[in-house]
Amino acid sequence: MTKREENKDEGLSRRALLTRSAGVAGLAGVGAAGGMAITGVTMPGEAHAATGDSVVGPGELDEYYGFWSSGQAGEVRILGVPSMRELMRIPVFNRCSATGWGQTNESRKILTEGLLPETREYLKDKGGVWTNGDAHHPHMSFTDGTYDGRYLFINDKANTRVARIRCDVMKCDKIIEVPNTADIHGMRPQKFPRTGYVFANGEHRVPIPNDGSILDEPEKYEAIFTAIDGDAMEVAWQVMVDGNLDNCDADYQGLYAFSTCYNSEEGVTLAEMTANEQDWVVVFDIKAIEAAVASGDFQTIGGVPVVDGHHGSKYTRYIPISTSPHGCNTAPDGNYVVIAGKLSPTVSVIDVRKLPDLFSDNIQPRDVIVAEPQLGLGPLHTAFDGEGNCFTTLFLDSQVVKWNLEKAVASFQGEDVDPILDKVDVHYQPGHNHTSMGETKEADGKWLVSLNKFSKDRFINVGPLKPENEQLIDITSDNMEVVHDGPTFAEPHDCIIVRGDIVNPAKTWTRGDPWFADAEAQAEADGVALIGGNEVIRDGNKVRVYMWSVAPNFSMSKFTVNQGDEVTLYVTNMDIVDDLTHGLTLGNYGIAMEVGPQQTSSVTFKADRPGVHWYYCQWFCHALHMEMRGRMLVEPA
Amino acid sequence: MTKREENKDEGLSRRALLTRSAGVAGLAGVGAAGGMAITGVTMPGEAHAATGDSVVGPGELDEYYGFWSSGQAGEVRILGVPSMRELMRIPVFNRCSATGWGQTNESRKILTEGLLPETREYLKDKGGVWTNGDAHHPHMSFTDGTYDGRYLFINDKANTRVARIRCDVMKCDKIIEVPNTADIHGMRPQKFPRTGYVFANGEHRVPIPNDGSILDEPEKYEAIFTAIDGDAMEVAWQVMVDGNLDNCDADYQGLYAFSTCYNSEEGVTLAEMTANEQDWVVVFDIKAIEAAVASGDFQTIGGVPVVDGHHGSKYTRYIPISTSPHGCNTAPDGNYVVIAGKLSPTVSVIDVRKLPDLFSDNIQPRDVIVAEPQLGLGPLHTAFDGEGNCFTTLFLDSQVVKWNLEKAVASFQGEDVDPILDKVDVHYQPGHNHTSMGETKEADGKWLVSLNKFSKDRFINVGPLKPENEQLIDITSDNMEVVHDGPTFAEPHDCIIVRGDIVNPAKTWTRGDPWFADAEAQAEADGVALIGGNEVIRDGNKVRVYMWSVAPNFSMSKFTVNQGDEVTLYVTNMDIVDDLTHGLTLGNYGIAMEVGPQQTSSVTFKADRPGVHWYYCQWFCHALHMEMRGRMLVEPA
Repeated sequence: MTKREENKDEGLSRRALLTRSAGVAGLAGVGAAGGMAITGVTMPGEAHAATGDSVVGPGELDEYYGFWSSGQAGEVRILGVPSMRELMRIPVFNRCSATGWGQTNESRKILTEGLLPETREYLKDKGGVWTNGDAHHPHMSFTDGTYDGRYLFINDKANTRVARIRCDVMKCDKIIEVPNTADIHGMRPQKFPRTGYVFANGEHRVPIPNDGSILDEPEKYEAIFTAIDGDAMEVAWQVMVDGNLDNCDADYQGLYAFSTCYNSEEGVTLAEMTANEQDWVVVFDIKAIEAAVASGDFQTIGGVPVVDGHHGSKYTRYIPISTSPHGCNTAPDGNYVVIAGKLSPTVSVIDVRKLPDLFSDNIQPRDVIVAEPQLGLGPLHTAFDGEGNCFTTLFLDSQVVKWNLEKAVASFQGEDVDPILDKVDVHYQPGHNHTSMGETKEADGKWLVSLNKFSKDRFINVGPLKPENEQLIDITSDNMEVVHDGPTFAEPHDCIIVRGDIVNPAKTWTRGDPWFADAEAQAEADGVALIGGNEVIRDGNKVRVYMWSVAPNFSMSKFTVNQGDEVTLYVTNMDIVDDLTHGLTLGNYGIAMEVGPQQTSSVTFKADRPGVHWYYCQWFCHALHMEMRGRMLVEPA
Repeated sequence: MTKREENKDEGLSRRALLTRSAGVAGLAGVGAAGGMAITGVTMPGEAHAATGDSVVGPGELDEYYGFWSSGQAGEVRILGVPSMRELMRIPVFNRCSATGWGQTNESRKILTEGLLPETREYLKDKGGVWTNGDAHHPHMSFTDGTYDGRYLFINDKANTRVARIRCDVMKCDKIIEVPNTADIHGMRPQKFPRTGYVFANGEHRVPIPNDGSILDEPEKYEAIFTAIDGDAMEVAWQVMVDGNLDNCDADYQGLYAFSTCYNSEEGVTLAEMTANEQDWVVVFDIKAIEAAVASGDFQTIGGVPVVDGHHGSKYTRYIPISTSPHGCNTAPDGNYVVIAGKLSPTVSVIDVRKLPDLFSDNIQPRDVIVAEPQLGLGPLHTAFDGEGNCFTTLFLDSQVVKWNLEKAVASFQGEDVDPILDKVDVHYQPGHNHTSMGETKEADGKWLVSLNKFSKDRFINVGPLKPENEQLIDITSDNMEVVHDGPTFAEPHDCIIVRGDIVNPAKTWTRGDPWFADAEAQAEADGVALIGGNEVIRDGNKVRVYMWSVAPNFSMSKFTVNQGDEVTLYVTNMDIVDDLTHGLTLGNYGIAMEVGPQQTSSVTFKADRPGVHWYYCQWFCHALHMEMRGRMLVEPA
């Protein structure tokens, strides 16, 4: 039995096995003879393994969770893989009309408590929260080199933040703004022994402090690499480096982190940025930096320890790479880091086993490069199958190239061997890609997703703004096969694909969850039970309204306040049934919030519109859902 | 050749035809023998027509545009049908982090110019625009009983608005707030002779004016039916009626509109609202109302003519229907309107040919009911195949029932015929449904979408908040077949399915588009050409920055302003290439906007953070996309 056959037995449904037994071999040949592409048609038992769509028929379950960033849309998306169906949006850096993210007291606390004081001041007369973000790189927390199902982390390039999502309830629970830097880009969690650190690159060089005292003096700008404590969601330490930081990754040994640099010139125009023939990868010696922080070899800037990692520092090494390296991906075998060339047709392979010698100055920086195969035009990112093979996106060629690591090493050593195994066209201009479990030691070589930046003619035209295209590729056989075109709104910047058994979300909220601890505390102070409490508490011109919901009723069919009162609505969903989410929309007050089963949600607003205002449940819950409503009566001042 | 075969020849790709020729008949039997559901597997040429996913393979195009509301998410979505892939989000009532909807000058004008003065006043210290909406019913403009590809209209229940989307650029271009009412729900365009009017139901009864002078006196609340001029996007006239308005539709003759009423009791609690055994459908005589407006038989309230349509009015008729009728759908034959019972297991069929006699008082209201078949529990909405068959969602039974109109009429007349043809389980609790072209005279009977309010166990668990489930059903044969489960974020409230040839969006923007007319005018006043203009104009403490973009460059690599300046950025994308959208994100200023090919976008903000702030392109455009950036230098005050 070939490897392909084994994979199919694991991955296909019993239905597919049954139909396979009917023996329809030869169909693929019919399609090919007619000159048609045959991808996308289920050919049970035939030459390609299984199209994502067809394997997962109505009522069948996906094998993997896909966690997708949304780029400038600011959210995180959960997809099912291989069906490539979007299962959920998690608002993070955006505003969400449906859930009230950015408006409920619970979300506003998360969105504001990690901001720097100067940002809080700036936002004071602008609604208090950022309304946009640019979410690039979603990654799960690791334990011992593989995903542990606790958290997702994601960066915001637009407003210099890192967020964390709880995987039990699939909600963002912490967001911090990173000081001393601008525009967080590359971000990856520590893989070993656990996360631990979340490494984050400040992309754009800025003055420190960036208060206007330094303006058009680029030579005084700095770049900062940050290690965030992923448990406390606080900055642990920072390292000041040369160049512009791009992508990063961590090793499987817990010793080093890596960042690509695409502007070693430290220029501020395109011509300046691309002048040099070489840029570099910066390697960070984590243990040495921790020792520096412990021993006091740092400056405190913006309240955090900042270690000097410029050229010549003992905490870093700069490995020259052809101009503008971009992707930075550690292979599952733990030995290699693959650096994609972007403007060079090569990828450069670092052997992490040589890094101790580099930091001891026993070897030169370029000595850690053990392979540098030429793959094609515009290599951007690399994914892995766990069997020694790599899949690198070629932006300019609009292809994915499959190549073998050990063959590339042998070739670099002078052996006459071609590391390139296969190429497949993708549509069009791929950026990030990702394989199932591919950034862990459990990479399983089943699926590859190519996140393409242009869809052009692949879908019916929807106007000047087109979707991007995330394509699913079957990598279980020697030849990669595109089996699904997935249009997506801006922008599927990056993704991870996690085995289903690792992710175990809750079915309902649990009473006592920290998400609504503030509501619990206020209710206790007011002598009201959130479960079953149905009261209006007046406290000067502050009014707190406690109600509960059980489909199709709010416990309160009306309440009365005075114009100008500051009103806080607490709604506790007492339904215990799976999927029985309620909501509360307050008409013509611009207020809407999600209230999941067993959740408490709250919102505070000024009742400055007099009259009759209906609140209603906006999450369909019952045959009498439309009747689930009540009135806020606002007495005119 | 049966009808099924004919449909397949039209709808399937050449590939499917080719593979069909291989003769794999019998596979379905294999699946069935094994006790497995066989839906979702492509069985070319076999018993069910075609699964949506599989027919539309990689690189193949969908046959239909699907336009979806998103409920409380506030946007409109474009899907491809039958692939059910989401192709685009159109921000309407929400804020959009990616496109800058709610933040750009162009979008803020659309979001604010149609607001009532009191709402504009209310929003003054709240950012000026609503940030949420509850988008229910997307419908295209009609000419002569079928879609004409000009506009989409959609209601906002949360903040009492109706929006219009231009189908050439797929952007919202007008939003109006409807006066004298609260919480627009049912909404449908005039079908004949053209749109013309957009009919909109104010759902919740409120006092007029709703200024606090009347509060807890529900007997003084009013309900308002509104006809909006869809060309001017202004209220043409309103009708004051009894009861609560729910859904509505228009006829194919241009004579009548219809609204269901679910609270004829005019109660304010659940018990009061469901006390009566009968509610009603209100029929509006459009010509008579137009004559009333022309002759002065109206009051002017809130600046618009309001006609009295209470019981006894000559402009309306009230047709008694079992309690809480909900769906209201005109059949493509032009003769019948189907009213779904919700709390009654029946649907009631109105024969529009009898309405002149009703308005002449020659017959009684119930005489217009020509069928009332009992279908199952919780009938909510009805779709049509154009061959006399209806598809009604049964919320409580979690089914769709297929039934025949003429058989229902015959049965009502005493004939011994069963109008019910088929039932299929859906998963779970369906609300709206829609067939391909089903609300037009060109209903083609190919696809039915059932928008289900709960997905429960149909997908891998993503936490307490689950997706909804929109299922695609093949209706080309006698037995309906579910062929696709489509998870969606809140909330696929309603949709339409439009034949591809009707919709012809532009590939890029056209210079001179009214979207950026204000920018053109300001540039002209400043003596700057938007195409090629690269200038900073200072006008007191107002600064206007004109730049253009051609991948991978902004024309300006830096500009300098003073802290406190009011800065307007105009960016014109000079790229002409399809799909070459740029964006501008201004880091740590909370600003991001989309700039499509040949589009001008602008944003105005106060430069109150001193220092170096990078702007960058957030819409991936080129291998050197990351280098496409510049600096705003803000001199401290």
